[in-house]
Amino acid sequence: MTDLGVTAKELDADDELGALRSRFVLDETIYLDGNSLGALPVTVADRIDDVVGREWGTLRVRAWHESGWWAAPERVGDRIAPLVGAAPGQVVVGDSTSVNLFKALVAAVRMAVDDKDAEGGPYEIVVDATAFPTDGYMAESVARMTGCLLRPMEPDRVPEALTDRTAAVLLNHVDYRTGQLHDLPLLTAAVHDAGAYVVWDLCHSAGVVPVGLDEYGVDLAVGCTYKYLNGGPGSPAYLYVRRGVQDRFDSPLPGWNSHAQPFGMTAGYEPAAGVSRGRVGTPDILSLLALEAAMEVWDGVPLDAVRAKSLALTDFFLACVAAYVPDGVVEPLTPAAHAERGSQVALLCADADRVMRRLIEAGVVGDVRSPDVLRFGFAPLYVSFADAERAARLLAQNLP
Amino acid sequence: MTDLGVTAKELDADDELGALRSRFVLDETIYLDGNSLGALPVTVADRIDDVVGREWGTLRVRAWHESGWWAAPERVGDRIAPLVGAAPGQVVVGDSTSVNLFKALVAAVRMAVDDKDAEGGPYEIVVDATAFPTDGYMAESVARMTGCLLRPMEPDRVPEALTDRTAAVLLNHVDYRTGQLHDLPLLTAAVHDAGAYVVWDLCHSAGVVPVGLDEYGVDLAVGCTYKYLNGGPGSPAYLYVRRGVQDRFDSPLPGWNSHAQPFGMTAGYEPAAGVSRGRVGTPDILSLLALEAAMEVWDGVPLDAVRAKSLALTDFFLACVAAYVPDGVVEPLTPAAHAERGSQVALLCADADRVMRRLIEAGVVGDVRSPDVLRFGFAPLYVSFADAERAARLLAQNLP
Repeated sequence: MTDLGVTAKELDADDELGALRSRFVLDETIYLDGNSLGALPVTVADRIDDVVGREWGTLRVRAWHESGWWAAPERVGDRIAPLVGAAPGQVVVGDSTSVNLFKALVAAVRMAVDDKDAEGGPYEIVVDATAFPTDGYMAESVARMTGCLLRPMEPDRVPEALTDRTAAVLLNHVDYRTGQLHDLPLLTAAVHDAGAYVVWDLCHSAGVVPVGLDEYGVDLAVGCTYKYLNGGPGSPAYLYVRRGVQDRFDSPLPGWNSHAQPFGMTAGYEPAAGVSRGRVGTPDILSLLALEAAMEVWDGVPLDAVRAKSLALTDFFLACVAAYVPDGVVEPLTPAAHAERGSQVALLCADADRVMRRLIEAGVVGDVRSPDVLRFGFAPLYVSFADAERAARLLAQNLP
Repeated sequence: MTDLGVTAKELDADDELGALRSRFVLDETIYLDGNSLGALPVTVADRIDDVVGREWGTLRVRAWHESGWWAAPERVGDRIAPLVGAAPGQVVVGDSTSVNLFKALVAAVRMAVDDKDAEGGPYEIVVDATAFPTDGYMAESVARMTGCLLRPMEPDRVPEALTDRTAAVLLNHVDYRTGQLHDLPLLTAAVHDAGAYVVWDLCHSAGVVPVGLDEYGVDLAVGCTYKYLNGGPGSPAYLYVRRGVQDRFDSPLPGWNSHAQPFGMTAGYEPAAGVSRGRVGTPDILSLLALEAAMEVWDGVPLDAVRAKSLALTDFFLACVAAYVPDGVVEPLTPAAHAERGSQVALLCADADRVMRRLIEAGVVGDVRSPDVLRFGFAPLYVSFADAERAARLLAQNLP
């Protein structure tokens, strides 16, 4: 065993989260793609079997109330809330991240235009130019539909782009490509100083990085649940609406599920109180309840320990890569500073596609962001230090 | 046994679709609420078990391609297509009906405004005033966001409301409350004569009524899959985009899944070719594949026989109600004429809530639309004539 192999063994022995691994269905594969699709929690299969066979199969339509299907979007939202630093009643689950981005950004613009009405437009939407593509596409669509101008901007330069014309700012908490963590408290404060509203995309941070939505006064946030929240392929996303702006949340997608009296079936729209007005149509129950079952893996897990292990894993992986891979063959894109790092390591690497194919054959699953970025996600609940060491070793053996 | 009981027995003996009942998980309950949530097909539980346990659990992220998850929205769309009279490549599954209504209606308005550009606005959206509430709410939102005026109108009076200012018309094929079937060929032709685009909501018709989207040149349509398509609670909806307008379909929700190169992750949005541009975010795989498994109940089923049985069932139920229920206690809202009837019977009835509660206790599940409408849905694939006779008999025994 190499020295780093010994170190990995020691780190795993000391890992207070090590036992959580048994909460997931795992095999000999080293799975470093939990930032794309989280591993299957052991609680999900039985729960879904019951939802399909007993609830749908025998209760049928009665299950909407008797099995709590109707209230699941808010109930599962409250289950996610602690992971993003939100008090109950501010997170609702449903739709895709993309659709929630649309809702949040339109709502943000409408609040800002309402505030700034006297000044007259046109107003601006500032969007993180390095964001996951959907964010940029949606921001463009929202700009077009609300008569705003669109200003794509590097996150670090957002403060200097803010003016009294800025209505809304859409930012990614962790960059999906590089794994860089952006400064949510600082950027949120800057947006507020400009009298604008901020929407944070938490897809790559919730579950691995402390978020603190309430603490920093974030207005709106969205995130997916199939990465570090392990909700399953395409599980529904969530929308956070800060309590203080819920009464002003004016959704562009006013479906019957967000109506004050959804079963009144009245012709006039009247939005529900609270975060329920972020709902749209009939919630996707199988996926939503799979997610709810998956959330049990967080029972009793201290989030500060998750963050500490995430940083220790990525530190250790970077050290192993530095030790095993000859200089100059790969280059970390992920910041070395802890304050700027999410829970993934991105390596610039020639021929990244072929390298990843070989790695996968060798039993290490990461992914590639074209054309030349290898991504390795470290889900602290089920990835071990031994995984990190072995992945780096196999990477070194499978380079071009 | 009553005379009608004998007749029911004879009708069931002659029913060529009678054997399809074994494709569903049923019990002694008489389930007449398939127009709200379809019964569980026997194929679903094993398939979902495999999707969760093997595909998600062991293939994990590789299943997106190796298990065909990525292409499921179009593949399942093609499975639905014959039920709505569409050739392949025009139906895509995903999101809720409400969200698809938004996409379709904005796209319709944009095409119309593009056509009529020389004339100048403001243009109008005509919406079925009797539609399911979500349709009206979404039409209002689309009008607000596209600068159109909104004209709610009874479906029968839509032709007279059309002018050269009409951009888009949103209609329900079957009224969710009364069960009335509207004249899709006639209304579609009228909308086209006015140079406008039509969006049909097929929630209460697909699977029980011939639709003929291609035959009648419908532009856009949406529908849910959890009623007569038995996809499960909140299973994803579908969007139909006629081939001839796909190149002009300009989505207000341009997510990364609708990009020409979804894995290119480029900053500029370029819509995919074909109906894939109706996609938005990551598709909800558990629900989508439950729906795909549920679609197997249609294998080898002649749709004309489904329509014939639907009409025979509703005729027979109305006859049983007329025979068993004293005159004047209930009043059918559902049209007597076959050409105007979907697959449900709606009865005006005092104290409808209490009557339905008692009926459910007696083993007959229908539902109520406030304040005074009893709804009974007849899913021809699993409801028998004996069910219809017994439901009418129990209704008579449980009136106020």
